[in-house]
Amino acid sequence: MKNIMEGDEWNIVQNGFYPEDNLFTESIFSLSNGYMGGRGNFEEGYSGKTLRSFFHAGIYYPDKSLYGWYKIGYPKINNVVINSTDIIGIKIFINGNKLDLAHTNFKNFKMVLNMKNGLLERSFLIIDELKREIIVKVKRFLSIHNKNLLAISYSLTPLNHEAHIGSEPYMNCLIKNEDAQGKEETLWEEVSKDDRTLVVKTKKTEFHLASSMNVKIYENKKLKDVPLIPVIKDRYIGHRFEMNVKEGKTLEIEKYVSCYNSLNTLKSEVAMKSKENLESVTSYGFNDLLSVSEKLWRKKWDEMDIEIDGDVSAQQATRYNLFMLNSTFTGEDKKLNISPKGFSGEKYGGSTYWDTEIFCIPYLLHTEPEVVKNLLLYRYNHLQKAIENAKLLGLKGALYPMITLDGSEGHAEWEITLMEIHRNSAMVYAIYNYIRSTDDYDYMADYGFEVIGNVARFWADRVTYKKDRDIYVILGVTGPDEFHNNVNNDWYTNFMAKWVLDYAYKQAGWLKGYNRQKYKEICKKYNFTEEEFDDWENISKKLYINKNEELDVYIQFDGYLEMEDILASKIAKKMLPIVQHWSWDRINRSCMIKQADVVLGLFLFDDVFTLKEKKDNFDFYEPRTMHESSLSACIYSIIASEIGYGDKAYNLYERASRLDLNDYNNDTIHGLHITAMGGSLIPVIMGFGGVRIYDGIISFNPRMPKAWKRLSFRINARKRRFLLTITRDKLHIKLESGDNILIEVYGKKYQISKSKFLEMDISSND
Amino acid sequence: MKNIMEGDEWNIVQNGFYPEDNLFTESIFSLSNGYMGGRGNFEEGYSGKTLRSFFHAGIYYPDKSLYGWYKIGYPKINNVVINSTDIIGIKIFINGNKLDLAHTNFKNFKMVLNMKNGLLERSFLIIDELKREIIVKVKRFLSIHNKNLLAISYSLTPLNHEAHIGSEPYMNCLIKNEDAQGKEETLWEEVSKDDRTLVVKTKKTEFHLASSMNVKIYENKKLKDVPLIPVIKDRYIGHRFEMNVKEGKTLEIEKYVSCYNSLNTLKSEVAMKSKENLESVTSYGFNDLLSVSEKLWRKKWDEMDIEIDGDVSAQQATRYNLFMLNSTFTGEDKKLNISPKGFSGEKYGGSTYWDTEIFCIPYLLHTEPEVVKNLLLYRYNHLQKAIENAKLLGLKGALYPMITLDGSEGHAEWEITLMEIHRNSAMVYAIYNYIRSTDDYDYMADYGFEVIGNVARFWADRVTYKKDRDIYVILGVTGPDEFHNNVNNDWYTNFMAKWVLDYAYKQAGWLKGYNRQKYKEICKKYNFTEEEFDDWENISKKLYINKNEELDVYIQFDGYLEMEDILASKIAKKMLPIVQHWSWDRINRSCMIKQADVVLGLFLFDDVFTLKEKKDNFDFYEPRTMHESSLSACIYSIIASEIGYGDKAYNLYERASRLDLNDYNNDTIHGLHITAMGGSLIPVIMGFGGVRIYDGIISFNPRMPKAWKRLSFRINARKRRFLLTITRDKLHIKLESGDNILIEVYGKKYQISKSKFLEMDISSND
Repeated sequence: MKNIMEGDEWNIVQNGFYPEDNLFTESIFSLSNGYMGGRGNFEEGYSGKTLRSFFHAGIYYPDKSLYGWYKIGYPKINNVVINSTDIIGIKIFINGNKLDLAHTNFKNFKMVLNMKNGLLERSFLIIDELKREIIVKVKRFLSIHNKNLLAISYSLTPLNHEAHIGSEPYMNCLIKNEDAQGKEETLWEEVSKDDRTLVVKTKKTEFHLASSMNVKIYENKKLKDVPLIPVIKDRYIGHRFEMNVKEGKTLEIEKYVSCYNSLNTLKSEVAMKSKENLESVTSYGFNDLLSVSEKLWRKKWDEMDIEIDGDVSAQQATRYNLFMLNSTFTGEDKKLNISPKGFSGEKYGGSTYWDTEIFCIPYLLHTEPEVVKNLLLYRYNHLQKAIENAKLLGLKGALYPMITLDGSEGHAEWEITLMEIHRNSAMVYAIYNYIRSTDDYDYMADYGFEVIGNVARFWADRVTYKKDRDIYVILGVTGPDEFHNNVNNDWYTNFMAKWVLDYAYKQAGWLKGYNRQKYKEICKKYNFTEEEFDDWENISKKLYINKNEELDVYIQFDGYLEMEDILASKIAKKMLPIVQHWSWDRINRSCMIKQADVVLGLFLFDDVFTLKEKKDNFDFYEPRTMHESSLSACIYSIIASEIGYGDKAYNLYERASRLDLNDYNNDTIHGLHITAMGGSLIPVIMGFGGVRIYDGIISFNPRMPKAWKRLSFRINARKRRFLLTITRDKLHIKLESGDNILIEVYGKKYQISKSKFLEMDISSND
Repeated sequence: MKNIMEGDEWNIVQNGFYPEDNLFTESIFSLSNGYMGGRGNFEEGYSGKTLRSFFHAGIYYPDKSLYGWYKIGYPKINNVVINSTDIIGIKIFINGNKLDLAHTNFKNFKMVLNMKNGLLERSFLIIDELKREIIVKVKRFLSIHNKNLLAISYSLTPLNHEAHIGSEPYMNCLIKNEDAQGKEETLWEEVSKDDRTLVVKTKKTEFHLASSMNVKIYENKKLKDVPLIPVIKDRYIGHRFEMNVKEGKTLEIEKYVSCYNSLNTLKSEVAMKSKENLESVTSYGFNDLLSVSEKLWRKKWDEMDIEIDGDVSAQQATRYNLFMLNSTFTGEDKKLNISPKGFSGEKYGGSTYWDTEIFCIPYLLHTEPEVVKNLLLYRYNHLQKAIENAKLLGLKGALYPMITLDGSEGHAEWEITLMEIHRNSAMVYAIYNYIRSTDDYDYMADYGFEVIGNVARFWADRVTYKKDRDIYVILGVTGPDEFHNNVNNDWYTNFMAKWVLDYAYKQAGWLKGYNRQKYKEICKKYNFTEEEFDDWENISKKLYINKNEELDVYIQFDGYLEMEDILASKIAKKMLPIVQHWSWDRINRSCMIKQADVVLGLFLFDDVFTLKEKKDNFDFYEPRTMHESSLSACIYSIIASEIGYGDKAYNLYERASRLDLNDYNNDTIHGLHITAMGGSLIPVIMGFGGVRIYDGIISFNPRMPKAWKRLSFRINARKRRFLLTITRDKLHIKLESGDNILIEVYGKKYQISKSKFLEMDISSND
């Protein structure tokens, strides 16, 4: 755990330089705009601990899969988003010495990310051996208005001498990857270049990427006509200059880079478009461009902000998560999805996981239902590949991949790739969740049922019938708790499969009535029959669910109670996280749980479990859960709120929301946990806010943490927008848009309309 | 399954050329002498399907470990024996065309391995587009007298024309590996060379290897003074010549290569020694050198031969297995062990597996007990590394590696590396087995107990106590049946651990009496106490053994009966082997067993299980066993013999003994199954021969297959040598050396001495 970042409601502030933690702070200060982005690297370069990375969404390379012994079902290829042209680079030479914070003497280092407008600022004071001082201030942002644009302002002010300053703003694509298999090779080839535009393409996949650069030099805010000498090398363009800067004067280098890639632009046009885009902004200054982007950020914040009074740390973390999730993924492009590390690191290769369906969509449904529809279509568009994937394993129906960029499986570890198949049910749950939140029933007819039917068909084939007891079991799986592999009757897997089979059966019936033509078409397309639907229902009914009635606890998997029983609280701090200290067999044979598993099921179907069940299962599993996945504490926090464990809910929320800011799992060096940030927003809305959008009704059961004075946020539900404000003594619910509706608040029903808000005294709740 | 090799009692014969199966035949015709060896490649090269390989025992390279996500306990390095200088190469040009059986037109291809003397012969008739014919005959062998020597005779006889023949015998170390991670790089660097000696060294490990070459040219058996032009390139030495050969005349190229490496020779001396050795044989011809080696083979065959009358196929296979095992491993060098593929392929990297202790030692004990002692010392010398390995996993005692060349673990798959820990008990079993066969009790005091105590300590730490039932369980393991991973209470693992703990406890007591000084030294060295010994005994007593009394069957692991129940006979032929057709999850959740597991335990401790137990377990498990490991059918065959399933025993022996000759598992292309060849010899001695060397007595219960007329072999036991001859009506046991002894035959005791053989009528047994 780290405590480097200072508390502030709208800013992430680092005071002082921590070379040992530079990989961590680089992750924290990542910037992106959904189109491109990278880590919080220094423009001038850094020879200390650093991972210099810049990525473009959806631009990937087919890396070799890594495995010991090949097994049927392993992909040969793992597509990974790769490091692309370094466009932030500006070499700086001061009085003949290269600026490099690993060697240059400096003080007063400060770095600030302003979440209101996405501006990253850095400043420090250089003092050389002759006591010559120079103030350095650097600002950069990625526009969310012009998504192809990066802007940097780099200023240097000599204080007590006239400085000789040389500089070379550059674009460099001679870059490598830390995490890709071919880490020793560069995965890009040059296509063309002139003195300001570099076009490169990825090897094998041949994605084209054009970057155009414009450099302006100012002295004391006045544009200066300094001759720029082009430095043109293999996959590299630099614009070099040098000049003397008098004491007290400020040299400002403005660097603008425009990028276009061939994901959505013709290869033949990327260079032209990137140049044109750069041209179009030449007449604007850094601040002009920032203010346009800032306006859009303001609009976003108006819609998505979660205001927390009385707890700066929680306010900061919540906004950080909103900021990062929203700058990573905008939901505009159906080819894209939310990768666990966004643009902040190479790990996980930019792939899509079930994180999207289970940890991001529940949040996004409350704020951006139209984005959720695009995320569902992403999976719909991959259905054929999921059918092929199941076939490869000898199974019917569709099996969605564990990780993917194009619908094909990229993962090659049998206990995950072939066994962590609960992910398949997540695809169905997301559709169910979307429709009950939006009433978009056409989605079911147009796209949803095809996915649902093929997933149900998979489960009907993947179960094993036990004649002796007339039950179906599911053997050989890994649940969400990846600490236990190849287990039988994993409760979460079984429960979700049982639900999918029943849901699919019912939706088949519903669709037949709703749109008979569509129903027939789909049945014909996939060879579905009424017999098969009945079969699903039959299997669903007989699918085994393991519950220990005495403990009132669902058993995570067959034999879980046989595992070595240890409590998380008894494990020595120095052995945390256990995944970095225990051998895998020790982890597997202990009761230690990586992340919410049974409890995740209780959350996803919180309307079918009793409060007592939730409490008993929470009491049993939480002390055995290590929360060593970023997708754990958030779920436990919601259930804790619900069962009245206010302090626990708050502590778990703190851990979830500040996972990266405090580096709880000692792995933020590899990048931020973007999908977990989505997950961390659910406890605010559904836990503390107590919002539920059930099939029948929208209900509110707010339980605000004791430390907070006020919590206020907006949600969307069934084409309506609500503003919820909770203070220590009042609950205020306002319908901001949409038709009148009956809602449930603390178990009682109220009619609400745009003209008739609801306000109630809740002071007795404390 | 393939049927390319023809039946013959002393030869392996291939008539006709099978380009599609060339990788298979190359494996079959592998040659080695314990020091060096390689696949049955063609001297002149071959551009079709081929894996050109030549290895030197114990010369390895530290390859990178391959894994997806790193887990505690994974090695970063996997040492692998690597391809070394190609010393067999002789380029041939006939009338200007390079000889290459992938392109040259030829007929009458024949290849014969003579197992009596280790000579590999190949012949074919070339016919070009002008109908010009040339007979080619090639012979080569690796001397077992001068182990540093390879000799080749390559002869060409033009039939109906005068041929222009060019040739370049060469040594080439610009070679690569198929299976090593760095398959694209050569792993050797040149050290020095002159016109006939090439010295190279492995990268990183810096093993030096010198190869010296001498070429002689004969015309019609007469030495001819042909000028040889040296061709010297990077890591390459060739001697080129060309000449005209008249119709009917025979050009013979003799090539001798002498090799020395730095495993047991000083780096500074390898070149000199290899030259000297080559000098020492210059005056001898090919046949002279062959006859010296042949004499040694004759001596070996006199001792080890197993004669089978009435079944050419079984006789051939048995001799093939004897020949290959004995030419792979001689047991002279304590640094070496028996690798699963010997010198016949890259797979398994030349490493040592538990194969040695469980599948080779039971055979070797009957023929070469002194070799077994060296194999035990190999593990004794690795004890400290095994202790470090256990520590890395957070465990006490010693855990021997799954695969190794130098004592360190080379394997990186959690379900094997961290879970297939029954291998640890194999180390103890081998010591137990050795001592009961040789009465070498000093071995226990001098070396054995240190290994045994540290393995027992490991098990005492690896078990989990279940308070509710006052039992110990072993969680999270993989048994010998690698088709089921991460299971609990694997019967074989538990049984062996239980035995080890009890045996270690008893040996501690025994040692205290046998050699108190040594006992004290060892206790001090490892901090053993009487309390710890008592603890082992206590754990052993309470260690859980899962038996289903109703079925009279030991349950392979907790939940085995829950698996999908299929019989091997019901699986479609086209899906075999299932490991190449089923996904790993399907394999894991089925009852399909890869190799003898419970039944292996019954074999290893066949004196503690009843005949009924053996029969019931065999009847239950054999129909569920796929025999997709080379280490399966041999064990089942022994038990089948014992329980009176004669035909089954014979069929299983056929499968075990001809595993490679018939390519039963469709994987001989990667190399021979050398350790399985050791395993395949056990059914002859212990199954059909019915030989048992128990603690108390040596017993004989021969049950010869119906098809055989006579079975005869020698065995060593307790410093005695017996000759056993079984015919259809008589059993003849002769004590050839050693003191008088009481033996048990078919349950009755007999005194036997050198002067008093035992002969009995067994005609009623049929």
